[in-house]
Amino acid sequence: MTDRKGRQEAVVRVACIQMEPRVGDKAHNVERSLELIEEAADQGAKLVVLPELANSGYVFENREEAFALAEPVPSGETVRAWAAAAKRHDFYLTAGICERDGEALYNSAVLIGPEGHIGTFRKVHLWNEENLFFEPGNVGFPVFKTPLGRIAMIICYDGWFPESWRLCALQGADIVCVSTNWVPIPGQDPKREAMANILCMAAAHSNSIFVAAADRVGTERGQPFIGQSLIVSYTGWPIAGPAGRSGEEIIYADCNLADARRKRNWNEYNQVLRDRRSDVYDEMLGSSARPGWY
Amino acid sequence: MTDRKGRQEAVVRVACIQMEPRVGDKAHNVERSLELIEEAADQGAKLVVLPELANSGYVFENREEAFALAEPVPSGETVRAWAAAAKRHDFYLTAGICERDGEALYNSAVLIGPEGHIGTFRKVHLWNEENLFFEPGNVGFPVFKTPLGRIAMIICYDGWFPESWRLCALQGADIVCVSTNWVPIPGQDPKREAMANILCMAAAHSNSIFVAAADRVGTERGQPFIGQSLIVSYTGWPIAGPAGRSGEEIIYADCNLADARRKRNWNEYNQVLRDRRSDVYDEMLGSSARPGWY
Repeated sequence: MTDRKGRQEAVVRVACIQMEPRVGDKAHNVERSLELIEEAADQGAKLVVLPELANSGYVFENREEAFALAEPVPSGETVRAWAAAAKRHDFYLTAGICERDGEALYNSAVLIGPEGHIGTFRKVHLWNEENLFFEPGNVGFPVFKTPLGRIAMIICYDGWFPESWRLCALQGADIVCVSTNWVPIPGQDPKREAMANILCMAAAHSNSIFVAAADRVGTERGQPFIGQSLIVSYTGWPIAGPAGRSGEEIIYADCNLADARRKRNWNEYNQVLRDRRSDVYDEMLGSSARPGWY
Repeated sequence: MTDRKGRQEAVVRVACIQMEPRVGDKAHNVERSLELIEEAADQGAKLVVLPELANSGYVFENREEAFALAEPVPSGETVRAWAAAAKRHDFYLTAGICERDGEALYNSAVLIGPEGHIGTFRKVHLWNEENLFFEPGNVGFPVFKTPLGRIAMIICYDGWFPESWRLCALQGADIVCVSTNWVPIPGQDPKREAMANILCMAAAHSNSIFVAAADRVGTERGQPFIGQSLIVSYTGWPIAGPAGRSGEEIIYADCNLADARRKRNWNEYNQVLRDRRSDVYDEMLGSSARPGWY
């Protein structure tokens, strides 16, 4: 594909790896992730997304188990294994990891490139019993500049908060990689599409960004996960997936990440990020957050 | 329906009136709206939503036409006609109206109850050539307390900004009434569901609020509108509609507005509005809005 000046467009093949980690079996999980990464690389993927807590599993028995599975970033064994793969295949990878920093654990995602670890995101909004094990994220929503484009990461329940996506977009993200362990949630009909998919579509459209969400499958200690990984264009429409609800699967989409920036002007008057009325929001958020109606 | 204490639950029948105003023909538009209001009242509706600019039409020829169709609120003829209907049928009504305040025009929505005009919202985010005629809204996102529950209003393009819904929810809105004139937008496949519907669903779910969106149909001076009015439960799933793409139609849903407040606790740890990390957002919005990446 060439642009109007005849230049080669930078189309990035994005892969979301939907896999089934086993809680507590880190050796298996990392090995399995490397097999699937290999497969994605063979298909030409240049940006690969793995699920939340891909190396540890999700439903910890207790704090001891969570601590035993956690490791420092980037010096731990998992990041070193993933970094070797990124170097070998010359691609970028975002992946959920159980991170230990001193006595604190974080539900984190790492961005790794051919030259190694680039940066870390720590889940801001903790879901359910994660509150027993993890500290809430304390590094905001970092956006990393790479040769592919600007990449941000969020994790699972972060996607329920429009603020997460917005803060990524306002810092220039072209794509938000979502490492996730989506679970069935109250009020949802399991026969319908996942509300999590709807949230990704709305966020992509209203921020004009690509979204690549890699979910897990399987059941851990009675907790089922719902699969349905997907890749969404800046238009808001899925361009890969949703994947199935129960099997391991890799989905691929060729994304021209430049479109996220280039196609935000919807007409002569409107550009969806610049149209924000921060004058109105700032004043209201200062006061409206306080009454506590909710 | 009774609650756990055996009390009668306050279920509100909500109606969204999908109609086809004719630009410039205010007498016809108000008369037609009253016919449809009558029909909704006969069906037991207690909260009726009309589209954006329901009394004036949308595609103004020029400023003179827009001024000629505008009227003061609440003293103008349209609000008086709608207020008489609300009194007669003992219900509440939100409706889009072309408002004149001195030399300024606003794309507004009014909330009217059995005792008359309750309050006004002025569209915050102006779409396309609306910028030629209207001033941007200057009254924030007011939330009005009524015997039915707390009611907020937004208009069309406001729904593209997660901030609009959030500010309504943070002030306690149980339902957001959307008066809209949805148009086809770039990057959307006309054969698929409307992205506008997806935005309503995501907003309802991630704020735990009801959403009632009344769109218009027809084509004005070459500008088509897309219909597909819908009513969404606090779960995020439609409970009425989407309506058709081209015909006038009224959709109804019985909404227990108390559920918006009662069912926000998703588990022992999470309540979707209280889980907001305003510590993170406030600091980032202060700085991230500035680099101008977007």
